[in-house]
Amino acid sequence: MSQDIKKALEIITSGTVQVTPCEDLVKKLQTKKHLTIKFGADPTAPDLHLGHAVVLHKLRQLQNLGHKIIFLIGDYTARIGDPTGRSKTRPPLSGEEIASNAQTYLNQVGKVLDLEQTKVCYNSEWLAKLSFADVIHLCSKVTVAQLAEREDFAQRLKEKTPIGMHEMMYPLMQGYDSVALHADVELGGTDQTFNLLMGRHLQETYGQEPQVIITLPLLEGLDGVRKMSKSYGNYVGLWEAAESAYGKIMSISDELMWRYYLLLGEKTASEVQELKQGVVQQTLHPMELKKTLAFTIIKRFWSADEAQNAQQQFEALFQQRDYSAAQEVLLPPETPNPLWIVELL
Amino acid sequence: MSQDIKKALEIITSGTVQVTPCEDLVKKLQTKKHLTIKFGADPTAPDLHLGHAVVLHKLRQLQNLGHKIIFLIGDYTARIGDPTGRSKTRPPLSGEEIASNAQTYLNQVGKVLDLEQTKVCYNSEWLAKLSFADVIHLCSKVTVAQLAEREDFAQRLKEKTPIGMHEMMYPLMQGYDSVALHADVELGGTDQTFNLLMGRHLQETYGQEPQVIITLPLLEGLDGVRKMSKSYGNYVGLWEAAESAYGKIMSISDELMWRYYLLLGEKTASEVQELKQGVVQQTLHPMELKKTLAFTIIKRFWSADEAQNAQQQFEALFQQRDYSAAQEVLLPPETPNPLWIVELL
Repeated sequence: MSQDIKKALEIITSGTVQVTPCEDLVKKLQTKKHLTIKFGADPTAPDLHLGHAVVLHKLRQLQNLGHKIIFLIGDYTARIGDPTGRSKTRPPLSGEEIASNAQTYLNQVGKVLDLEQTKVCYNSEWLAKLSFADVIHLCSKVTVAQLAEREDFAQRLKEKTPIGMHEMMYPLMQGYDSVALHADVELGGTDQTFNLLMGRHLQETYGQEPQVIITLPLLEGLDGVRKMSKSYGNYVGLWEAAESAYGKIMSISDELMWRYYLLLGEKTASEVQELKQGVVQQTLHPMELKKTLAFTIIKRFWSADEAQNAQQQFEALFQQRDYSAAQEVLLPPETPNPLWIVELL
Repeated sequence: MSQDIKKALEIITSGTVQVTPCEDLVKKLQTKKHLTIKFGADPTAPDLHLGHAVVLHKLRQLQNLGHKIIFLIGDYTARIGDPTGRSKTRPPLSGEEIASNAQTYLNQVGKVLDLEQTKVCYNSEWLAKLSFADVIHLCSKVTVAQLAEREDFAQRLKEKTPIGMHEMMYPLMQGYDSVALHADVELGGTDQTFNLLMGRHLQETYGQEPQVIITLPLLEGLDGVRKMSKSYGNYVGLWEAAESAYGKIMSISDELMWRYYLLLGEKTASEVQELKQGVVQQTLHPMELKKTLAFTIIKRFWSADEAQNAQQQFEALFQQRDYSAAQEVLLPPETPNPLWIVELL
């Protein structure tokens, strides 16, 4: 394996949960200069936060390596309402909601990906053209038992919670997207593993080289306990003011900092390991590292200027104090404005 | 209930296994002059025999009562290969096979139904027009658990025999046919009960008055034991020479004769009961009744002339004998030519 591919592999696999199968990824990297990377998103969540940014960040890394990112908006699949990871049927979205959400989504994605180098697709482009016979042909590629294996389906079947037949179609549609796109790689959260593997399976049955699937972990929220989620209030929204986001990142624990470095920073697993060593050996200060992390994240997802300003504002608040005391102060996630710290100190 | 409706009800329900729900049938008969009667057939069995004629005969009775028969050829569904009552997936048919089978089917159906009064439809007329979104909408009307209840699906799930997702679509397609046709009644064999009920369910979810379902029993073959089937050799083919068919019918047991009277003769259940009484009271002779049955069946499914000729040929073989001896002679199903009896006697 060449040094270039070795380095690329390290970047690609850092922070991932699963690369399946890794040997296929190596082979694809060796034989193709530009891989086609698929990332699908339901236009159902218009407010992106750093949790969503984990996958987007990995896509950006792949983009920086020269690969072709396809940001696929599941406008057609959104008509179903994917039940993945949910215990009940979701109501389908209207055409207007889909269009509006998709635009909001894209505006925010532009903070992470270079949209000029990103191909945006809508799966209605091919799914709307399928006839009933095509759908049947697609259905014939998979058994009921295979679909019933999906964790949430299995759970619902066990609990006798009804599963609409249309919900079973979802993995088939998502999988068919990979066929339509001839995807080399598909990325998703760990909750998407089954659907991603379905793409692999369908590509094989349609006579294509199957895609490699890469899953990313769910990012812990600012509390370090639960996954980042708007409903838990432990999030950093990509639409927030940079100062607020910077302050929130500074509020996380040292332990969580390593996780954020791995999933949102510019560091590979081995580089994060080196940083940890630095702290143990007291050659690096955690507060400095956290500032660097916050700066890096704001620079990447907002802008260099905003990162500079946010850092200056934060430092101004702490300029009379030494960092060892300041790092004990945690910002509660509900209060993004760091000015209240001044009152406390 | 008027006398006309009472009489119609007796004719319609005689020999059926199930009329569900009977009160809906009464209501439909009271409010509509001409009911739309759906009968669906896969163009997969080009050699019809008397077993198939049971349902066709019931359709003819309905036709004689003035109702509108729709003979639906499942040219689109045939692409799936319905697994109903089978333990494994059937291979789908090609377009050429479907067209050829459908024509052969219709040629034979003309022996039972008045084709001039029968509307022949192909379900590709509406199924081919459905988009993926329409299919999803259709799928949303039913749960996986509901479909998994179908006896053969349940059995295969239990045995862990794979069920293709496309096979689960079959009842939905057949059910949607009822929606497209606005069927008042659908007829089928008992093995079709689930699919017929699906039509009822889907019509309701699509805001239509649900169809009444009428199921007919499987006809026992000449051996009186197994269902009539080409593969068991216990059949009377609708394409056979009338003399051969007449002789085969004469070969059945007295017990089986009542069954054939009910399912293929012109008699209602109460009329068959009267005939039975006649035999018990020795006012009627079983051999005469069997000749009448054979004559009636040949007249109906072949022609009056052929019935006459077949009867004469049969009588010529027995003219020197009294019937009490002759009725002991059974024709083995493999030997349709009654001439061999002469050699035996």
